[in-house]
Amino acid sequence: MIRLTVLYHAPRDPDAFVDHYQNTHVPLANKIPDMVRWTWGKCLPGPDGSPPPYFLTAELVWESAEVMQASLSSPDGAAATGDVPNFATGGATMVVSAGH
Amino acid sequence: MIRLTVLYHAPRDPDAFVDHYQNTHVPLANKIPDMVRWTWGKCLPGPDGSPPPYFLTAELVWESAEVMQASLSSPDGAAATGDVPNFATGGATMVVSAGH
Repeated sequence: MIRLTVLYHAPRDPDAFVDHYQNTHVPLANKIPDMVRWTWGKCLPGPDGSPPPYFLTAELVWESAEVMQASLSSPDGAAATGDVPNFATGGATMVVSAGH
Repeated sequence: MIRLTVLYHAPRDPDAFVDHYQNTHVPLANKIPDMVRWTWGKCLPGPDGSPPPYFLTAELVWESAEVMQASLSSPDGAAATGDVPNFATGGATMVVSAGH
């Protein structure tokens, strides 16, 4: 399995980010073909109230690197990844890992 | 659902890290009670060969924050988290997110 972890940094306008993410980006990401699963979550402060190192994380899982590449290169995959600059005003760190 | 994403930074000795992770840490983590699932993966270079921002990632998922807290506070949970300093010589970034 291959996992893409997307780590969104704190955006300029958190409310605008969440609004765009939930109402525009999630529907686009739901159309990315051939994923095993995808999940996302808003990051929580530490037990001591310290700010989290990222604002929101998403995890997308495919069966193999070949399937991932075809999936993200498809029109629906490209539409979802192309939407990221529309809301990720703080940038995003992306990590691909070969999963167990 | 609640997710703990563990992002290990590049360690001093990658081979020693992987050896400890696979042979000691994975068996300990497999004993953490009441998880929905947990997965891990070694990070891959970027499409242009650039080094990944992290060395290895793990994702642990529970049904709720209460279950997560009890799970990690249990003897088996504490044994697994207590093992992290034994191999994470580059440190680790931990992020908790409320999942969808």
